[in-house]
Amino acid sequence: MPDQPPVFLVNLLKHHEGPPPTERPHVTLTFAQSIDAKIAGAGGRQLILSGKESMVMTHWTDYEMSKDRMRTMHDGILVGIGTALNDDPQLNVRHLPPPSGSDHHHLPRPIIVDTHLGLLPTCKLLANFQNGTGRRPWVVCSSIAPEGDRDKQERKEMLEEAGAKIIELLPPPSSPPGYLAIPLILKALRDLGIRSLMVEGGARIIASFLSEPVVDALVVTIAPVLVGNAGVGYQSPTVLSSEGELKARFKDVHMESFGKDTVVALQALP
Amino acid sequence: MPDQPPVFLVNLLKHHEGPPPTERPHVTLTFAQSIDAKIAGAGGRQLILSGKESMVMTHWTDYEMSKDRMRTMHDGILVGIGTALNDDPQLNVRHLPPPSGSDHHHLPRPIIVDTHLGLLPTCKLLANFQNGTGRRPWVVCSSIAPEGDRDKQERKEMLEEAGAKIIELLPPPSSPPGYLAIPLILKALRDLGIRSLMVEGGARIIASFLSEPVVDALVVTIAPVLVGNAGVGYQSPTVLSSEGELKARFKDVHMESFGKDTVVALQALP
Repeated sequence: MPDQPPVFLVNLLKHHEGPPPTERPHVTLTFAQSIDAKIAGAGGRQLILSGKESMVMTHWTDYEMSKDRMRTMHDGILVGIGTALNDDPQLNVRHLPPPSGSDHHHLPRPIIVDTHLGLLPTCKLLANFQNGTGRRPWVVCSSIAPEGDRDKQERKEMLEEAGAKIIELLPPPSSPPGYLAIPLILKALRDLGIRSLMVEGGARIIASFLSEPVVDALVVTIAPVLVGNAGVGYQSPTVLSSEGELKARFKDVHMESFGKDTVVALQALP
Repeated sequence: MPDQPPVFLVNLLKHHEGPPPTERPHVTLTFAQSIDAKIAGAGGRQLILSGKESMVMTHWTDYEMSKDRMRTMHDGILVGIGTALNDDPQLNVRHLPPPSGSDHHHLPRPIIVDTHLGLLPTCKLLANFQNGTGRRPWVVCSSIAPEGDRDKQERKEMLEEAGAKIIELLPPPSSPPGYLAIPLILKALRDLGIRSLMVEGGARIIASFLSEPVVDALVVTIAPVLVGNAGVGYQSPTVLSSEGELKARFKDVHMESFGKDTVVALQALP
């Protein structure tokens, strides 16, 4: 694979060239799924496929390279706490040779949405920051009342000691307790200088982002397998026109095969 | 598109050359879905997409042609009563020019699984048979007790008058009332000379066939749209290896784009 990102990704992410909106970054939502739209195995565990004829769904070199390319094109990568705990991801760029004239790629900022601060201080994201191989992770949580949750305050201090920057957000009084709305999170990230954000999952984060008109580009990788009922799917709203017909929210701009997988790239319709 | 079926379909359906098993026909399961694995709109209705940038999901010429090609390669086409009532399908070959040296394609036998005989005598399948443009439809139902359901007996007679052949099957005493197991249906069709069967849906039929080890080939067409929560999905069982890993049931043999859609063709693993 050449040093440059594939042309379809460059085209898909062309809106990055323009200034982002004032209230949020440019958002790219990306995930891998099976034919039957499952993004994880039972209980949210990563999927591993057995058998000679199958592949390991969590280790497709081509897919990982294309995901890494996309990561280098964004200021931040966001995942939910479920993914952070289940996968202990590194959210860095490991499958690409360094670009010519430099010894490393642009590394995006790792961002974890973690309302109750359940992230482990021993996670790889914090270990990588401590040993100088990763950027300081940002952890977005709901604000801690001054005389409030002592345990959460302690968890905050432990995570800060391990190197995390904690971003406390105060949900409006009308929100369900402990719920952080996506626009609130995006506004905070934009104010902190994140101009482009790649969102990688898991199921709840995907559903939350798809339920808001904030996704500029959608990149879905489809593996040619059926996972079945035990797998974890994702929700998305049905949008109907005034005539009651299904209204497309995205236009497809590209379909490409990567090894055995199919990558579908879509762009938001105005 | 040339007169011959695409090579990948010929390869996929190569097992048709050999004799079918004694207890069932060769089975090809085929359906179209969105990225989020929905096969129909709310309430099982056919999906129609609005908007300049979208497509009409029920009328992809390329897709219809490839489906027609597949139909000509099978002895029978099977759908469930839900699809028969919702879509009023014709299950014939309308999008292909006739083959050279003949004025028509091989037409597969239309077969409707309709346990309670809810099919309408005015449906297109029966109208086509009456006016000589379609083969006699077979309707598979659960057997009517001699002193039993008088209404069902009447519906049977009306359907027979309209041209349907009614195939009554007696489920084993252990079955839930009114439930026809897929192997029972397949054995009856095989005994009636159906050596190859294309199964087209809907959701319940797809789920029933995927839950049995009877599908030799699986052809899924994926349209680059999200339908959302209101759409109808399909169930399939999760099969795990003895190590608890996901066991692939199919190997992918081909992926091809048809217009904006992606066709994934898979073959059953032994």
